[in-house]
Amino acid sequence: MKLLAVKLCFILIILVCQSQSVLALKKNSKTMKPCKQLELYYHDLLLEGGNDVANATSAAATNATKLGNFKLGKLIIFDDPMTKDRNLHSPLVAKAQGFYFYTMKTDYSAWFAYTLIFNSTDYKGTLNIMGADLMNADTRDFSVIGGTVDFFMARGIATIITDYVLGLEYFRLKMNIKLYECY
Amino acid sequence: MKLLAVKLCFILIILVCQSQSVLALKKNSKTMKPCKQLELYYHDLLLEGGNDVANATSAAATNATKLGNFKLGKLIIFDDPMTKDRNLHSPLVAKAQGFYFYTMKTDYSAWFAYTLIFNSTDYKGTLNIMGADLMNADTRDFSVIGGTVDFFMARGIATIITDYVLGLEYFRLKMNIKLYECY
Amino acid sequence: MKLLAVKLCFILIILVCQSQSVLALKKNSKTMKPCKQLELYYHDLLLEGGNDVANATSAAATNATKLGNFKLGKLIIFDDPMTKDRNLHSPLVAKAQGFYFYTMKTDYSAWFAYTLIFNSTDYKGTLNIMGADLMNADTRDFSVIGGTVDFFMARGIATIITDYVLGLEYFRLKMNIKLYECY
Repeated sequence: MKLLAVKLCFILIILVCQSQSVLALKKNSKTMKPCKQLELYYHDLLLEGGNDVANATSAAATNATKLGNFKLGKLIIFDDPMTKDRNLHSPLVAKAQGFYFYTMKTDYSAWFAYTLIFNSTDYKGTLNIMGADLMNADTRDFSVIGGTVDFFMARGIATIITDYVLGLEYFRLKMNIKLYECY
Repeated sequence: MKLLAVKLCFILIILVCQSQSVLALKKNSKTMKPCKQLELYYHDLLLEGGNDVANATSAAATNATKLGNFKLGKLIIFDDPMTKDRNLHSPLVAKAQGFYFYTMKTDYSAWFAYTLIFNSTDYKGTLNIMGADLMNADTRDFSVIGGTVDFFMARGIATIITDYVLGLEYFRLKMNIKLYECY
Repeated sequence: MKLLAVKLCFILIILVCQSQSVLALKKNSKTMKPCKQLELYYHDLLLEGGNDVANATSAAATNATKLGNFKLGKLIIFDDPMTKDRNLHSPLVAKAQGFYFYTMKTDYSAWFAYTLIFNSTDYKGTLNIMGADLMNADTRDFSVIGGTVDFFMARGIATIITDYVLGLEYFRLKMNIKLYECY
């Protein structure tokens, strides 16, 4: 009878093993809470937007093509500051280095890929992010696809909101970064 | 003796725990089945390929460089339709927004990064995809590296087949998207 | 009493289940060992750097912008050899196809996205990699965000060291690729 108990244990453990290997691939997004969360503001000051070299943090590497009226093909390389609040002159939390380009024929829409480079007392390391920025949607989600040091191997979602636009000269995005895989 | 059974259980459970933490990182690709699968057709109509602005869905942002004879350096930004079948005029399942560029000195090969933007009754959300398109291989695999909404945090493989080419004017790719990590 | 042992088992197994679903998302980076590791050398011979077409493996698709003095905006497309040792003429282990661009206003820094394409007796398949290359740091980490065939669904870190620079003509990077998620 004691053997029976041990056998039952074995069977249950095997069932657990099998269910676990499925669990590792099918997780419930509804009940998931981020393992790390950051809210940051991204500031972009385009050289061609009227900023001088001293002031600007991004510049166009290509011109818009002739396809549509929404700058499709214009590629901007940026070295943009990230801050904890809306103030461009607040202490730097991270640098955002990467690019975006206009990618839609019938409306304004951009595609981003960039690295957040943290070097503060709070965080060291990087987060790599990419996704489509459907500018006319209230919020849109980028994929956080990897990270290093404090964000080693992280994955998650960066939810983007356009916080402020000043012509071609300046725009500010709120980035709510939710990591769901942390190491 | 009952204590012995309980002790054995403890030991077994600890073994399970340890094996699981390895299992979570070492999974068997041979026996894996996708948790979600989609087959879609990608249609690219290049402006420079002879299409007019009304018709075209992509345009070159840079010219080919002088390195080799296979357009290395030519960067195309696209806003391409995705359909369920080969017909360009079938209902839109998704938009593919992103870029490809020619990247090989000795043969035609491109490198893609793009977002599939779904907005149908079947699916909402996005999938982010990137990889090398070795055009002369029968099939090639891109990485699906993230997603949002219905594809929240998804990962997988997009297998690409060149389905049809009409000079520089039009090409169609079959994309078989297999997600192996779903939430 | 035997029933008690079985009940205890059940409770323990449920606890294991719950702890496991957290374990799958929270892993300890300190104690992690790579499931696969590769050390490779990347060789870049820029056409504009003085190499002739026969010799060069990369070319600039855009010019630097006027923002800063560190080539911000210059985009290079490459088709570069990867070898096991420092010798450019050693047998090819992989091709690296992709791009980098200069992305920093106040110093040299680049941003990379590329695919390693393996086709040797040792390895078949691809690895997709991206990240910021802070050139003045001794080492910097890129994200390995996906892979195919022998590297199916792989994730990890590629640690980059500048191994040698010869003016604008040639540079060599050591890439230590550590995969932490293997299938």
